Amino acid sequence: MSKVAVIMGSTSDLPVMQDAIDILKGFDIEVEVDIVSAHRTPEKMFSYGKEAHTRGISVIIAGAGGAAHLPGMIASLSPLPVIGVPVKSSNSIDGWDSVLSILQMPGGVPVATVALDGAKNAGILAAQIIGTQDKCVLDKVVMYKEGLKQKVIEGAKSVKK
Amino acid sequence: MSKVAVIMGSTSDLPVMQDAIDILKGFDIEVEVDIVSAHRTPEKMFSYGKEAHTRGISVIIAGAGGAAHLPGMIASLSPLPVIGVPVKSSNSIDGWDSVLSILQMPGGVPVATVALDGAKNAGILAAQIIGTQDKCVLDKVVMYKEGLKQKVIEGAKSVKK
Amino acid sequence: MSKVAVIMGSTSDLPVMQDAIDILKGFDIEVEVDIVSAHRTPEKMFSYGKEAHTRGISVIIAGAGGAAHLPGMIASLSPLPVIGVPVKSSNSIDGWDSVLSILQMPGGVPVATVALDGAKNAGILAAQIIGTQDKCVLDKVVMYKEGLKQKVIEGAKSVKK
Amino acid sequence: MSKVAVIMGSTSDLPVMQDAIDILKGFDIEVEVDIVSAHRTPEKMFSYGKEAHTRGISVIIAGAGGAAHLPGMIASLSPLPVIGVPVKSSNSIDGWDSVLSILQMPGGVPVATVALDGAKNAGILAAQIIGTQDKCVLDKVVMYKEGLKQKVIEGAKSVKK
Amino acid sequence: MSKVAVIMGSTSDLPVMQDAIDILKGFDIEVEVDIVSAHRTPEKMFSYGKEAHTRGISVIIAGAGGAAHLPGMIASLSPLPVIGVPVKSSNSIDGWDSVLSILQMPGGVPVATVALDGAKNAGILAAQIIGTQDKCVLDKVVMYKEGLKQKVIEGAKSVKK
Amino acid sequence: MSKVAVIMGSTSDLPVMQDAIDILKGFDIEVEVDIVSAHRTPEKMFSYGKEAHTRGISVIIAGAGGAAHLPGMIASLSPLPVIGVPVKSSNSIDGWDSVLSILQMPGGVPVATVALDGAKNAGILAAQIIGTQDKCVLDKVVMYKEGLKQKVIEGAKSVKK
Amino acid sequence: MSKVAVIMGSTSDLPVMQDAIDILKGFDIEVEVDIVSAHRTPEKMFSYGKEAHTRGISVIIAGAGGAAHLPGMIASLSPLPVIGVPVKSSNSIDGWDSVLSILQMPGGVPVATVALDGAKNAGILAAQIIGTQDKCVLDKVVMYKEGLKQKVIEGAKSVKK
Amino acid sequence: MSKVAVIMGSTSDLPVMQDAIDILKGFDIEVEVDIVSAHRTPEKMFSYGKEAHTRGISVIIAGAGGAAHLPGMIASLSPLPVIGVPVKSSNSIDGWDSVLSILQMPGGVPVATVALDGAKNAGILAAQIIGTQDKCVLDKVVMYKEGLKQKVIEGAKSVKK
Repeated sequence: MSKVAVIMGSTSDLPVMQDAIDILKGFDIEVEVDIVSAHRTPEKMFSYGKEAHTRGISVIIAGAGGAAHLPGMIASLSPLPVIGVPVKSSNSIDGWDSVLSILQMPGGVPVATVALDGAKNAGILAAQIIGTQDKCVLDKVVMYKEGLKQKVIEGAKSVKK
Repeated sequence: MSKVAVIMGSTSDLPVMQDAIDILKGFDIEVEVDIVSAHRTPEKMFSYGKEAHTRGISVIIAGAGGAAHLPGMIASLSPLPVIGVPVKSSNSIDGWDSVLSILQMPGGVPVATVALDGAKNAGILAAQIIGTQDKCVLDKVVMYKEGLKQKVIEGAKSVKK
Repeated sequence: MSKVAVIMGSTSDLPVMQDAIDILKGFDIEVEVDIVSAHRTPEKMFSYGKEAHTRGISVIIAGAGGAAHLPGMIASLSPLPVIGVPVKSSNSIDGWDSVLSILQMPGGVPVATVALDGAKNAGILAAQIIGTQDKCVLDKVVMYKEGLKQKVIEGAKSVKK
Repeated sequence: MSKVAVIMGSTSDLPVMQDAIDILKGFDIEVEVDIVSAHRTPEKMFSYGKEAHTRGISVIIAGAGGAAHLPGMIASLSPLPVIGVPVKSSNSIDGWDSVLSILQMPGGVPVATVALDGAKNAGILAAQIIGTQDKCVLDKVVMYKEGLKQKVIEGAKSVKK
Repeated sequence: MSKVAVIMGSTSDLPVMQDAIDILKGFDIEVEVDIVSAHRTPEKMFSYGKEAHTRGISVIIAGAGGAAHLPGMIASLSPLPVIGVPVKSSNSIDGWDSVLSILQMPGGVPVATVALDGAKNAGILAAQIIGTQDKCVLDKVVMYKEGLKQKVIEGAKSVKK
Repeated sequence: MSKVAVIMGSTSDLPVMQDAIDILKGFDIEVEVDIVSAHRTPEKMFSYGKEAHTRGISVIIAGAGGAAHLPGMIASLSPLPVIGVPVKSSNSIDGWDSVLSILQMPGGVPVATVALDGAKNAGILAAQIIGTQDKCVLDKVVMYKEGLKQKVIEGAKSVKK
Repeated sequence: MSKVAVIMGSTSDLPVMQDAIDILKGFDIEVEVDIVSAHRTPEKMFSYGKEAHTRGISVIIAGAGGAAHLPGMIASLSPLPVIGVPVKSSNSIDGWDSVLSILQMPGGVPVATVALDGAKNAGILAAQIIGTQDKCVLDKVVMYKEGLKQKVIEGAKSVKK
Repeated sequence: MSKVAVIMGSTSDLPVMQDAIDILKGFDIEVEVDIVSAHRTPEKMFSYGKEAHTRGISVIIAGAGGAAHLPGMIASLSPLPVIGVPVKSSNSIDGWDSVLSILQMPGGVPVATVALDGAKNAGILAAQIIGTQDKCVLDKVVMYKEGLKQKVIEGAKSVKK
């Protein structure tokens, strides 16, 4: 079965990144969580990026703030699709630094970037990627979206009263 | 076999989006190209989004400029992973409009966003997604990255002279 | 008599959008309120946009945050004038994402954009549009503006003391 | 019959604003064109804003660049709906100045803002406003949008070849 | 003797603009305070701008937020030097709108713009302008700056302990 | 008689700053032009700022690009009103650096900032400052503005044809 | 032995700049702290910049907010390497003003700029510069980085539980 | 003798980075030039960063564009001071991406960032760092700055004519 890695540059990113973990667990997808800092543990990042695909991981979600190099470096080290989550950390310039550091990758090394603090969407995107090969996961994504629709419809009812 | 759809809002986006088509063809991945405008052909967009996964498409790459709604709307209509390419069109405010219109999707409906005019990376990302289930495509991505490395090494040699 | 639709992407937009509803009710203009999410209820949005003008609505006010696609999509589906309200939602990048996603529409499909969180002005603009054909509404707009002037004049008095 | 005023701060704005004039003439809507500078001819602007609605004008389109005060000042002087076109003039800071000067109007005095250099959309929006009371104009807008759709469909055909 | 006018678009700007009033009073310069809204009381603004120089005013300080048109319009109506204070109002996009609406005036109609919420500096600048003809005011500005220097020197002492 | 100093950080700023010189000469105001670099000739800047008011200069216009420190430093050294012109130099980040370096002065040390590359307005503002004490210069400013008005009126005529 | 100067424009910058002082003391590097305001004490700044290298200082760290001229002016006055710390002061426009005023120095006069409020990194960078000639300091930097790595590894452990 | 490494992500960065090389050679400092891509040759970057200080290099200058990870990654791998040069590459969003990716490093891992395309200043800064231990290099920096001053003084003379 497919496994998704959720890594982040610092434990302070966990409150944001937890959304990705929760969504994936809700889809019964196995999740591996780790702290991997591009700037403080470059060796760990290096071996993590090189080896992730060798132990059953299909997709890597990487979150980081400020000059966020983790997603792009993992993408340069791994053949797997890498999803980047820009985290609006305390010293960030309104999040622009993390967004641009993750999004603007050079030709050849893509990072699938989601919205600022958009870890939930990173989890869903990982599930959709797995869903391209696993009908059961795809069905769960479809059901999840159906649930979102129901909430809007109920919201609409309450507004109309 | 997996197929990738490359769609865009206007024929004027084709020079940018061609990079995605070329990369995918270079990986021997079948590509379907179409012009689908969120704002001028909403009905076509609607049926396209609803039906793409029913005719063998695994990943949709959608490019658009300005208030770029195509990638996000396709993501809301399709269960497939959608890759968004912000295109720096002529009336764009330096590309910020297309980047933010594609990137900042609400919780529940991710778009895997790549760099401004980053269609090449959209193609590679699509290949990586297919590569999670197709060893042969994965190998081609790895070889492609190896080729990039060789070019840098040759560049380094010429600089050292 | 003319009716104005006030729609928004999520119930969380209601506190901002209420200003439009209040202004319109103050002008004795009939208002229809609904939650219509471009990304979570695309089918509802589709039929809403296609049919609004067939049931007596003259103007549509649409509010949304982040990658705000509702105003532009409604504008692509309806022949009516559409007023867009960029909402500064919690995950927004200071509101730039909603402003640019609504404002920067391509040629052919205008959205009449008002200020960030400017739902009050959306209501007044809708009244002005109705006022082009309804002298009674026009008079109310003129009286409303006269009221604003009086408040400034009173403010000026208090400052001079 | 309804008339639309197209005014601008300087003759140098005419190449951009001509798009609005052309669109309106294409819809057989009477157009009045004038140069009215908020900063160089404030008296003319004042009387223009005060009197426009008294001589058969239903909608005012106002274009300006830089610290663009014309649309907002006209909106403060006239009871008519005012459409603002931010023009990217030569000394503009990438158009941000004109966009924000026009868009961010205070509560009570709306300007219906369109995209940077989006005069074509200003013309269509004016037609849609007139179309709320004039079935014939509404039909022309619908036909115009149908024409846009056909162009996209033809573009799609040429791309598929 | 010279008089300085301190005007602002709304009473809500007073807490910011008070700094200008206080500074000028501290220099024994006569101050006239008023609320003049470009968008809500355009007639008052018009006559204010036209007449200010006829009743002994030498410099006008004008503060406004959002799409801040007051400073620029007063500058177009009056031959006096106009100092503009961008106010960071509650609905402002981080102050960028007021800064650009005031700063980016077209050739021919200058506004002497100071920092965001920089009313204190507007007061000092007005005093410096009066100081070009009034040695007594100039001396007070020099003494004020000397006071600032002393505060820094005392701060330096406390830091070194 | 009053004299205006026009200084700039580099000869490469001269094409922009020439507008200020030309305007002032057109008003028959004596102009002193010099190159004073904050970063390359700090000693010269220091004595220039300290002494300008002792040799008949009433107003200093200072233009600079990038991290533009000249206007603010001169303002810290001189009791005279200082007008700052942000110059969009070749390595500037779209002019934002020069605008913010000049505009955002701390409390106590104002710089009267004009638009990006707005040297013409700096010249007019200097004339207006001199005009607060010199009726003859004031009249020339009024006539100059009258000339601008005539040009707009002629432009309006040509557009109406 | 090498000494590092830590200077700042105002005592209000001290809470941010303290991080630099603490880091340097932690490395047993002698620190000299002072308040030196470019705009309020230009003479002190001048002599400080001219003399710092004559009394054993090897590196100058200068912090300032808003239109932050201190780092650049010190760099123009001193032959020493100058590290600039942009401080996000209360009236700053989100820190952009201090960042650009410090970073965008013209050719010939570099400032080694660190992140917004990044005084800690300024301290480490100063230590690294001293470390190029002082093996003992270099070893402390290496140990400090090793400590950061350990913290990440412990964080990773706690997350995995 | 001290050696400076000048590395960059791509041969396309060479025209910008050449300024650093030229300045350093002009100071008779030994320069080692190499192409090291964070994203295409991560292994080379890894060993480069780990080993640079072991072969006589004192300072590393690293230039890169877009999501520029090279300077920050080298800083995480090497104990040496690292100077980062943001390069405005063709697909950059006006250079903001490279500036923020290099500048906004997290606490613990500084990069001494210079202006956009500011390679010349990177070279001078490297010389200043070496100058903290090498009087001869320091003298050359002082002479270089003296040369800049002379050019300004000559420019001033030509302007005064």
